[in-house]
Amino acid sequence: MEINDIYKQVRDIPDFPKPGILFKDLTTVFKNGESVQRLSDELYRLYKDKGITKVAGIESRGFIMGSILAARLGAGFVPVRKPGKLPAETWTETFEKEYGCDAIEIHRDAIASEDVVLLHDDLLATGGTMLAAYHLIQRFHPRKIYINFLSEIVVLNGRSVFPSGVEIETILKF
Amino acid sequence: MEINDIYKQVRDIPDFPKPGILFKDLTTVFKNGESVQRLSDELYRLYKDKGITKVAGIESRGFIMGSILAARLGAGFVPVRKPGKLPAETWTETFEKEYGCDAIEIHRDAIASEDVVLLHDDLLATGGTMLAAYHLIQRFHPRKIYINFLSEIVVLNGRSVFPSGVEIETILKF
Repeated sequence: MEINDIYKQVRDIPDFPKPGILFKDLTTVFKNGESVQRLSDELYRLYKDKGITKVAGIESRGFIMGSILAARLGAGFVPVRKPGKLPAETWTETFEKEYGCDAIEIHRDAIASEDVVLLHDDLLATGGTMLAAYHLIQRFHPRKIYINFLSEIVVLNGRSVFPSGVEIETILKF
Repeated sequence: MEINDIYKQVRDIPDFPKPGILFKDLTTVFKNGESVQRLSDELYRLYKDKGITKVAGIESRGFIMGSILAARLGAGFVPVRKPGKLPAETWTETFEKEYGCDAIEIHRDAIASEDVVLLHDDLLATGGTMLAAYHLIQRFHPRKIYINFLSEIVVLNGRSVFPSGVEIETILKF
């Protein structure tokens, strides 16, 4: 299977989660075992030589390929979650969305300063959620932070919100 | 690493998510790459000869080992989510919780009748959420449904809510 075949499996959903947005539904990709393997191979190829020790996935779609990649790399998996979901002491980062304010949290013992962290989510749109996650990870002063999305809405130019020099990789480009 | 070592990594959180509940926090297990490998090996050993074609994970902690296991088995991954999160046509199942009513959903095209489905979540407590998920999967009339939890609060006897004959496996028993 080629990456081009995976594009064909993505389902367009008009007006989700709100009018005017064409949502790229990846559940039609994930339900295909061969596609999961192909994406896992592709992600592994990108990061196998980076010394990644923790993969942090953003709730909840970022848990899917994020945890698969953690297992593949032999790294630990760290969940970045909505407020109130993580049971122990957390750090919180708030950020603006087009429809108001939102926040994400991480456990204060999730990362160590000797870690090399890969932040993963399924989709790069405006980049607001991932930038907040990036700020959360920075608090731990890890050796390095990489950023990865399974897919990217290129025209929204979400990459521009991140500091220059941060390595950002995406696989499916819309 | 032995499974006994993983028990030691589980963090007890008193009074979460509400007073009187001793929450078993598995994030301290997942952040350890070796533990993720060990659990993945254990789950793979349990299910490698069952012909599983889809792993359905329950949002959102069930996405973590659920998707890892799907990748390991070469199966597809199907998310079972909170209402309103899945973008295409869904089936919904409501169920009672101690603090009111709740619901979960699945895409109507997630499973085919020739599938062998493994339902996965992180914790078996009273079993209410998983029973609702089991009912969702039954609507597709798949060849077989297996149920798996990473952990189980044995004294709550959550197994008793499932029809007899359903194969339920758990790894960590509290």
